[in-house]
Amino acid sequence: MIQRLAIVGLGLLGGSVAKAARAEGLARSIVAVGRSAARLEAARRDGSVDRVTTDLAAGLREADFVLLAAPVAAIEGLLPDVWRAAEPDATVTDVGSAKAAIVRAAERLAAARPLAFVGGHPMAGSEQSGYAVARADLFQGATVILTPTERTDLPAAKRVTEFWEAVGARVTALDPERHDQVVAAISHLPHLAAYALVESVARLDGQALDVAARGFKDTTRIATSDPRVWREIFLTNRAALGQALAAFRAALAEVEALIEAGEGERLERKLAEIKGVRERLS
Amino acid sequence: MIQRLAIVGLGLLGGSVAKAARAEGLARSIVAVGRSAARLEAARRDGSVDRVTTDLAAGLREADFVLLAAPVAAIEGLLPDVWRAAEPDATVTDVGSAKAAIVRAAERLAAARPLAFVGGHPMAGSEQSGYAVARADLFQGATVILTPTERTDLPAAKRVTEFWEAVGARVTALDPERHDQVVAAISHLPHLAAYALVESVARLDGQALDVAARGFKDTTRIATSDPRVWREIFLTNRAALGQALAAFRAALAEVEALIEAGEGERLERKLAEIKGVRERLS
Repeated sequence: MIQRLAIVGLGLLGGSVAKAARAEGLARSIVAVGRSAARLEAARRDGSVDRVTTDLAAGLREADFVLLAAPVAAIEGLLPDVWRAAEPDATVTDVGSAKAAIVRAAERLAAARPLAFVGGHPMAGSEQSGYAVARADLFQGATVILTPTERTDLPAAKRVTEFWEAVGARVTALDPERHDQVVAAISHLPHLAAYALVESVARLDGQALDVAARGFKDTTRIATSDPRVWREIFLTNRAALGQALAAFRAALAEVEALIEAGEGERLERKLAEIKGVRERLS
Repeated sequence: MIQRLAIVGLGLLGGSVAKAARAEGLARSIVAVGRSAARLEAARRDGSVDRVTTDLAAGLREADFVLLAAPVAAIEGLLPDVWRAAEPDATVTDVGSAKAAIVRAAERLAAARPLAFVGGHPMAGSEQSGYAVARADLFQGATVILTPTERTDLPAAKRVTEFWEAVGARVTALDPERHDQVVAAISHLPHLAAYALVESVARLDGQALDVAARGFKDTTRIATSDPRVWREIFLTNRAALGQALAAFRAALAEVEALIEAGEGERLERKLAEIKGVRERLS
């Protein structure tokens, strides 16, 4: 059992971790660190956390498990302060949606002062954000990708794995660079495509949106995601996203070429093959 | 009230029209025309239609309201036979998802033998198809686009409008060519993008699909649509689809350029603007 869980950043993910850890009784005490005392106060009042502070060093004191749940672009910048303030035996993990830069920065810091860091990424976002939409069951059935490397402390990796499993998630592991490629493909590319779909339809014919049916709405729901969050994700993972976009353009061009050539048989086979791939997802 | 409703093609749309018309008591009798007697038999047995036939001319005899619900590529080919067989006072409409070719073909036929034809397109598809998934409430709240032209018989257009409204749809009108551009943007492009997303992720890294979260699943749900249906739709509406694809590529390139240039502020403003457009859809 965790003695003191420190959560840095209390938005959708950090807030949901607090609620889930409380609901499952995973930590004797929970402290939340954030930039705005007023925003943190809601979590203290509803009992999801025991203490709140805007002082990172105070928040990490005596914490044996530290979860960094700040926006992805802020996590790397927080690491030097975390390294100064964290207890020597603390396990530190994060929820950033791009991992290579964060994990490699942590490894550089750990070369000077050993501290057990395990990169993590719960695939449980939402087009909504903020503590107001945090919920204890957010991670039920979700996938959490951990990104241990050959330098990762094994007991710490086990501890982080058990933590996420205890809040209902399925944990899987990927190399940090591989993680960034995978999420570029499976998450960042679809978001970019959804934004571009809405933009292109609005430009082609604004009135077209008036007759949008369920297909369009489902396909573009994630275009209502938080622009600040996605600005950071796109910028942080831009290299892998560029590769995913190139593959997407190639796939679009291939299908379009079959359509333009009137290649009905081959087009139908290609669509059937894709349908088969998609149907294997639950 | 319709004396005899003839439905040509008893898949998801034709079958749902039969069930809805029966449920609402819109027609004294309903006859279904299809290519396979065995497939039609299910609808006769469950009482959705009164008679079934594989003979188009027999099916249209004495019908005062004819709904062509064959696959979109087949409808244009059916028109000459419909023109030969339909009663002179019948109102003929269809459900084809590309309209210009069908409506213009009907107008050419009507120049030789006047017959009231009104192009129509219920925006109520599904990734599933076939009579087995037809349901009486498919059109509740759906949009049906009619495509009358300056040559369309006004009482027929009114009759078709009232028919769709009686099964719960909201009816709107567009010029046939404009319709094809609008649905290319709002429906055909998102389907193509969803197919290409699945294809590109599978090619980039098949294992990436194992960690796909709700965002990817929602965005690509329509990639499980019927390959035969979508082959036809893409081919039938290829000109307008090409324009929509060009606009989509331009929108993708614009957002990508902001990401590559690290233009965080402008990127966030663009995403916020798109989010605003998408949120205006119910």
